[in-house]
Amino acid sequence: MKKVGVALLGVGVVGGGTYEILTKKREYIKQNDGIDIEVMHVLERNTTRCDELGINPAIVSTDITNITKNPDIKIVCEFFGGIEPARSFIIECLKAGKSVVTANKEMFSKNWPELEQIARENNAGLYFEASCVGGVPIIHALTDSMQGNKVQSIKGIVNGTTNYILSRMSDEGVDYATCLKDAQALGYAEANPTADVDGFDAMYKCSILSSLAYKKRVPLDKIYREGISQIKVEDINYGKELGYTLKLLAISKNYDKIEARVHPVFLPNEHPLSSVKGSFNAVYVNGDNVGDLMFYGRGAGALPTGSAIVSDVIFAAAQDKPRRFAWEEVKEVNDADFEKEFSSKYYVRITVKDVSGILAKVSAAFEKFNVSINAVIQKDAKDNAELPIIFVTHLTTESSMQAALKDIEGIDGVVEVAALIRVED
Amino acid sequence: MKKVGVALLGVGVVGGGTYEILTKKREYIKQNDGIDIEVMHVLERNTTRCDELGINPAIVSTDITNITKNPDIKIVCEFFGGIEPARSFIIECLKAGKSVVTANKEMFSKNWPELEQIARENNAGLYFEASCVGGVPIIHALTDSMQGNKVQSIKGIVNGTTNYILSRMSDEGVDYATCLKDAQALGYAEANPTADVDGFDAMYKCSILSSLAYKKRVPLDKIYREGISQIKVEDINYGKELGYTLKLLAISKNYDKIEARVHPVFLPNEHPLSSVKGSFNAVYVNGDNVGDLMFYGRGAGALPTGSAIVSDVIFAAAQDKPRRFAWEEVKEVNDADFEKEFSSKYYVRITVKDVSGILAKVSAAFEKFNVSINAVIQKDAKDNAELPIIFVTHLTTESSMQAALKDIEGIDGVVEVAALIRVED
Repeated sequence: MKKVGVALLGVGVVGGGTYEILTKKREYIKQNDGIDIEVMHVLERNTTRCDELGINPAIVSTDITNITKNPDIKIVCEFFGGIEPARSFIIECLKAGKSVVTANKEMFSKNWPELEQIARENNAGLYFEASCVGGVPIIHALTDSMQGNKVQSIKGIVNGTTNYILSRMSDEGVDYATCLKDAQALGYAEANPTADVDGFDAMYKCSILSSLAYKKRVPLDKIYREGISQIKVEDINYGKELGYTLKLLAISKNYDKIEARVHPVFLPNEHPLSSVKGSFNAVYVNGDNVGDLMFYGRGAGALPTGSAIVSDVIFAAAQDKPRRFAWEEVKEVNDADFEKEFSSKYYVRITVKDVSGILAKVSAAFEKFNVSINAVIQKDAKDNAELPIIFVTHLTTESSMQAALKDIEGIDGVVEVAALIRVED
Repeated sequence: MKKVGVALLGVGVVGGGTYEILTKKREYIKQNDGIDIEVMHVLERNTTRCDELGINPAIVSTDITNITKNPDIKIVCEFFGGIEPARSFIIECLKAGKSVVTANKEMFSKNWPELEQIARENNAGLYFEASCVGGVPIIHALTDSMQGNKVQSIKGIVNGTTNYILSRMSDEGVDYATCLKDAQALGYAEANPTADVDGFDAMYKCSILSSLAYKKRVPLDKIYREGISQIKVEDINYGKELGYTLKLLAISKNYDKIEARVHPVFLPNEHPLSSVKGSFNAVYVNGDNVGDLMFYGRGAGALPTGSAIVSDVIFAAAQDKPRRFAWEEVKEVNDADFEKEFSSKYYVRITVKDVSGILAKVSAAFEKFNVSINAVIQKDAKDNAELPIIFVTHLTTESSMQAALKDIEGIDGVVEVAALIRVED
């Protein structure tokens, strides 16, 4: 039987989950996949954590050369997170001819071309199923199940923290700040929640998935990003009246050109993504031949993400030569491949004073910038004689919308543009 | 560049779709996967169809030896459907060392061990992603993304015809017979709809998916099967009142023992499978580490199913040796692996005469057989003084339920047991 040594860089949450699966399922994997996978070294300074996991202290150290110089170790799994020392250690391992498996979306999305180059020069593999949407096998789906398709669009709920917060705001009417605090208490959100709530985490995944799907590198600076911290329960409720569910989506499209963005979106209630609740994730992909596909599951957690790492380890161990994707030949980012601006439908809430003729004035301003209106809801005035008007537009460009809103803000009687949320079908 | 010759056995709907993808995407696949795939022979007697598809008549014949004797043809895709001549032609191709890709669920579920044996003896590959749920890559997910999991259950909407019929019955209140006629007119159902509406098609897929997931052969005769032809709009509507959506599911579970069944099921509205509408399919899988996953997409059609065939062709072409699954060593079916009977919650509609004490009598009969009741809805009497009582039970065994119903049918005042539908969480 083929025997393959594995090393783990870090045994925090996902590293620990991976250790647990690889040890508990060792016989099971031998039986089913015909490969004996042994964890031969663990790079970790927290020896208490290693003891908790029952790791033999003889295989624990803080010296990467215990891994790079061991010829029996063929595969290295990285769980440090962040850029350094993850990046440097991965490079050292690749240079030693080890295949690398990583769940590190930030480091990977920022350094993919460099890592790929080094992997190729050293005949090493580079696998990253766990970097996007935890246990959901979306990377495999894109690379091994959709080869006969031009992927035309990706829409993903790829961040559990924000989906938990938005689901609670929607189901229970609790405000953003309270939901965030609860998410932190439950361990769904970090003490510094920026990476999740401001859409950075979703942006990293958007970059990786889009690059793989469109076979062209989609770097972070080509992705428009907006988080959920400005979202009000009020707008979620008006959205419900209109038949919409609010989600933070990573969206990218690849028709003539590529556009990529991360922002809150109103989706029709009937859209399969609308029923993805709580900390679950899902990615909705359209291929020109297969049509719409959706992949749903847990996007985070020790065992779900560990499960994705283990699938990559077994895949890597089974291959005689590393898996390559042709798109990676395209190292340069070509500005001409990307849309300069995107088009969307919009939900706009404008607060106005309760004076006659105000709806006509605002409507005229939209018309002036060719923003065509699909639906309007005018609500009763509140105590202070201010009232919200909600507009849902037809497809228009972001720049037309922004120009119209600037104009509208100058109208006498308009208090503020209180909310702007994009609408997708 | 690696060059691989492919032959197509039949170019009907899916065969035609596959031909179209392989020819239109030939350059695209060369670029991305580094393999030049050429359709070198088509076995088809309908030359008009071949002309429609623009197939060069020089590569069309009805002689299988034009394929088996051509050393440049490495992969054969079978689209005949049915058992013969599909089975015999596949065996001839495997014996000639060709890898075989098939979408033929009936033939495959019935003959898998034999075909696998011959494939192994001749160092040929055997691929069947397209046999289950068309374009949805559920086979790949089970084999290449869940290796670190014991798969514990599968619940699938795996038949588009029945899902279309049940969706329409539910959304529009149209009766079964009318929906079936419309499905036939739209080409969603065959003139003889038995394979779909009586659950045979779902049973074939249940066998293939369960065998693969549980690494033990689950033959057709171990699968309980019940179709949708007895379903009444009335019960779908009562189910709605209870918060349920009706679906035809292929269900299998693998805790202590394996149980497998195909029948209509009431699912809670919040279950992700409940929002899978119309001709879409979805498979909900639970792994002990990854938790719940769902795979959603088009389960039929020329291009979606062709897309799955093409992914198998590319996978087969890229491998230097055929892919094997350890479970297939288990050729014998062991009765001890299977549950003798299954447990479920039940929805029961009983028609009774409007006489006093009838509810108590029926309830007592359930109690006698240890069937515990979770909810009861008693409706007003109709004109003829008969009325429906709906019971939803807690978990109970099928045999207890059947015994209770037999008893209940004998109660004076009970007109009939009008509906029995299983309920899943």
